[in-house]
Amino acid sequence: MKIGVFDSGFGGLTVLRALLERIPAADYLYLGDTARLPYGAKSRATVARYAASSARFLVSEGAEYLVIACNTASALALDAIREAVPVPVLGVVETGARGAQVSSHTRDVLVIATAATIESHAYAAACAERGLQAIEKACPLLVPLVEEGWIDHPVTAEVLRIYLSELMEQARIEGMHPDTLVLGCTHYPLLRAQIEHAVPQGICVIDSAAVTAEQAAQALGAALPGEAHPRARFFATDSVAKFRALGSRFLSRAIDHVELVDLGG
Amino acid sequence: MKIGVFDSGFGGLTVLRALLERIPAADYLYLGDTARLPYGAKSRATVARYAASSARFLVSEGAEYLVIACNTASALALDAIREAVPVPVLGVVETGARGAQVSSHTRDVLVIATAATIESHAYAAACAERGLQAIEKACPLLVPLVEEGWIDHPVTAEVLRIYLSELMEQARIEGMHPDTLVLGCTHYPLLRAQIEHAVPQGICVIDSAAVTAEQAAQALGAALPGEAHPRARFFATDSVAKFRALGSRFLSRAIDHVELVDLGG
Repeated sequence: MKIGVFDSGFGGLTVLRALLERIPAADYLYLGDTARLPYGAKSRATVARYAASSARFLVSEGAEYLVIACNTASALALDAIREAVPVPVLGVVETGARGAQVSSHTRDVLVIATAATIESHAYAAACAERGLQAIEKACPLLVPLVEEGWIDHPVTAEVLRIYLSELMEQARIEGMHPDTLVLGCTHYPLLRAQIEHAVPQGICVIDSAAVTAEQAAQALGAALPGEAHPRARFFATDSVAKFRALGSRFLSRAIDHVELVDLGG
Repeated sequence: MKIGVFDSGFGGLTVLRALLERIPAADYLYLGDTARLPYGAKSRATVARYAASSARFLVSEGAEYLVIACNTASALALDAIREAVPVPVLGVVETGARGAQVSSHTRDVLVIATAATIESHAYAAACAERGLQAIEKACPLLVPLVEEGWIDHPVTAEVLRIYLSELMEQARIEGMHPDTLVLGCTHYPLLRAQIEHAVPQGICVIDSAAVTAEQAAQALGAALPGEAHPRARFFATDSVAKFRALGSRFLSRAIDHVELVDLGG
């Protein structure tokens, strides 16, 4: 079984990491569309065009199942991707909402993500389908702060304090009692400790990586993790050197070889 | 005379604004390659491909003279652009270094810009050609802070304090006595007041917009500003609505109409 994992950049490697642990018997193809990233501030039409061409590439390389590890592409382009390829497609917005459903008792959840993901209200819709009410907030500075490497940094702590207090104030005004915060961007798990420190006690922070791996395992009828040694090939549309360097941070293990792909543009 | 002005996004509108004031008798074509922005963290090969296709588009629309208002494209792709089109091309790195030459008495200058511009050392080379020694620093958080609208904000003040104190420390270690700071990114003029507040007294802050307009006027033998009413057409490769909204902030006047262009990709 070959599983294709797609993201606009490196963040999706946190999802690949969870997949490697949960379904070690599969082979993996990971594509980061690094020449055209970030998707988070772009329009639906542009994101759909980029994501569809990326999905077609992974299928042409043999992927039989696709995991869209990019929240923005999952939020804006899942239909376009499903139309573009003949294989099953799983998106992280769907799995993030599933994770919130399992976690939340009050049925009120908070979601933080990029501007494009939030403006699409894809999380609110996916939560509503599961009987949850979501309050969403765009946090456009978090990705640049992670990429600057300012993880455990006072500026990042202050930015998180501002974003999260605005979000809690919004919840208060709407009379909601959130007990769950969904990290709606695959960069955010790198700030997980800082985010957990910044939210009020009693709010559970969830990222979709583990839930996504579990959902994929169920869909594929995958056996429980064993002793297999999964193989992964890595593709990027821009600098493979940067992919190797930055990507290792997200995957938590060294990336030896990255293949450069030209998807046009 | 039709002048084409190119940037990866909106920042180049600060250069267009200076051109409109200095050479009002010209017509202008402005292209923001917003579907593929930002260029600042991408490789030379990718930036060159994007910039060359953008330059060819402007010439196909009638531009007889090109101003590359994107620092990253000027730093990484000026040769590729000159090979791609048969018209004269002026880049903002060259004009920024020219501005520093006029301003500096100590011959030591500071440059802040995006990661890609700094890694290219294009400013250091352009300064060296003019007998100036440059110390350069990448400031990747400033563009996202401007785009978040956090112009007059304590977080931005703190980020500037950190970046500029690191830069001054580097100058001190190397025994330099800088008297000039070049804003090597067209987003940074929006933070000009905050930057002037953050640098030590006696350091002159310059952006390349005014110098670029003056150099273009000289190259084109343009008369002094008169009563003409320049016309400008605007093109973008992504959401024209966002271009109108964000662009007006950079141009300091309303943008009524933006044409969507598909450059592939």
